[in-house]
Amino acid sequence: MKRSERLVDLTNFLTENPFELLKLSTFTERYESSKSTISEDLEIIRQVFKAREIGEIKTYTGTAGGVEFIPDISDKRSVEFARDIQELMGHQKRILPGGYLYLSDIVGDPTNLKKIGRILAHEFIDARVDAVMTIATKGIPIAQATAECLNVPFVVVRRDPKVTEGATLAVNYMSGSSSKVESMVLSKRALLPGKRVLIVDDFMKGGGTLNGMRSLVYEMDCRVAGVSVFIEGPFHGERPLVDYRSMLRVDNIDLANHAIDVRLGNMFDRA
Amino acid sequence: MKRSERLVDLTNFLTENPFELLKLSTFTERYESSKSTISEDLEIIRQVFKAREIGEIKTYTGTAGGVEFIPDISDKRSVEFARDIQELMGHQKRILPGGYLYLSDIVGDPTNLKKIGRILAHEFIDARVDAVMTIATKGIPIAQATAECLNVPFVVVRRDPKVTEGATLAVNYMSGSSSKVESMVLSKRALLPGKRVLIVDDFMKGGGTLNGMRSLVYEMDCRVAGVSVFIEGPFHGERPLVDYRSMLRVDNIDLANHAIDVRLGNMFDRA
Repeated sequence: MKRSERLVDLTNFLTENPFELLKLSTFTERYESSKSTISEDLEIIRQVFKAREIGEIKTYTGTAGGVEFIPDISDKRSVEFARDIQELMGHQKRILPGGYLYLSDIVGDPTNLKKIGRILAHEFIDARVDAVMTIATKGIPIAQATAECLNVPFVVVRRDPKVTEGATLAVNYMSGSSSKVESMVLSKRALLPGKRVLIVDDFMKGGGTLNGMRSLVYEMDCRVAGVSVFIEGPFHGERPLVDYRSMLRVDNIDLANHAIDVRLGNMFDRA
Repeated sequence: MKRSERLVDLTNFLTENPFELLKLSTFTERYESSKSTISEDLEIIRQVFKAREIGEIKTYTGTAGGVEFIPDISDKRSVEFARDIQELMGHQKRILPGGYLYLSDIVGDPTNLKKIGRILAHEFIDARVDAVMTIATKGIPIAQATAECLNVPFVVVRRDPKVTEGATLAVNYMSGSSSKVESMVLSKRALLPGKRVLIVDDFMKGGGTLNGMRSLVYEMDCRVAGVSVFIEGPFHGERPLVDYRSMLRVDNIDLANHAIDVRLGNMFDRA
């Protein structure tokens, strides 16, 4: 097989298997080439992926060695993606009676979801995330997109237990916006103890739901690797939730003039 | 830029932008190369993608011309993927009280979802799908994975209207298993008239839910491009649903012996 052909297949193979330690022998066999030839190929890919900000190609030497592709966008690209979504958010037709926002088109589009997933994966790339957690229904696409980018599973919390979940663990939490006590459940078999969990949701008002998921993580004997929300909505008063990162922030929904004030969230404050 | 470097970046660019007609000028500018050079690059990629069953690279000539990457797996790969999932399904720990099956781990894993999405995308590659439809909650990951592979949006039907959905269209349907009349709703703005909709769900018993979605598609002045289900469960009697394709089929759940009889679904009958 020619180098040009190997490079095409190898590039596709690596991007298809992110965060997986692939042994060099996988490739020497696949291409019937020597280790040194494959190493040269990988070096070319490594440089292009670095220059084009596609991600990192890590090589490990020794008997347990191999190569790993770590997809990751740059801070700059992350902001660009967030601005793309911000632009979609600003449309006045999103405003629903009662000041609610219609988001289903955004979180139902694979192109947007890929961007959202990459922003969140970039934000928590060093947090050693073992699993992503969200609550049904609208958080699911965001959790799935993030989990895909981090190559970890995701688990879905529900407001009511279902017969298809088996034994469940339930927690009560205080809704931040209405001060009511509510409950949420998760299948006992969804998470093993000790896992580092990234909590995500689509929209945050008072932060009560996110806090509920936080206590659910602790009750599962797991740890919180991070808390993130796609959109931080307007809220008057002090939120009980301290540490969260938002992608976008809606400060004001002007029902009279059909205008929404959408900004980048606190995730980008450092930029 | 060297050919080897161009091939790496071009391969990644194409796989990142499936089903998009990309103008050749995009690449002549990106790589500061001539059209004939880029055409040669694309020919190399086309051949590798064909040999490795990654997908098809289509080139169109003329002023509206360009190149399009159509990811698609082979029938053979599709069966292999289905067998991978079938193996996961057969585990006795899946059986829950009442004969229900625990599936959340399977549909919460990005690797499995990618396989499921590819099988479904392959099955309906010629059905000119404009959008994928499913019902909350467990159908969502399957719909999202399929929509991603087909690069179309997905819409989520609910059992109850939510304030964040705006105006909704509701239909009543007959639950196939319990013969009760139930209802489901979809946001009016979720689908434009005339769209071709692929209906997917995670589990089918009597098929009533799928039939409900079918009537919802018609009430939206859209058309059904296909109906598919991840798992076809055991059902005694005649299903009111005629035309559907299942990926896996569970014929029997033996509660006494904790055994599940899982086979490939009718999607693979032709093989």
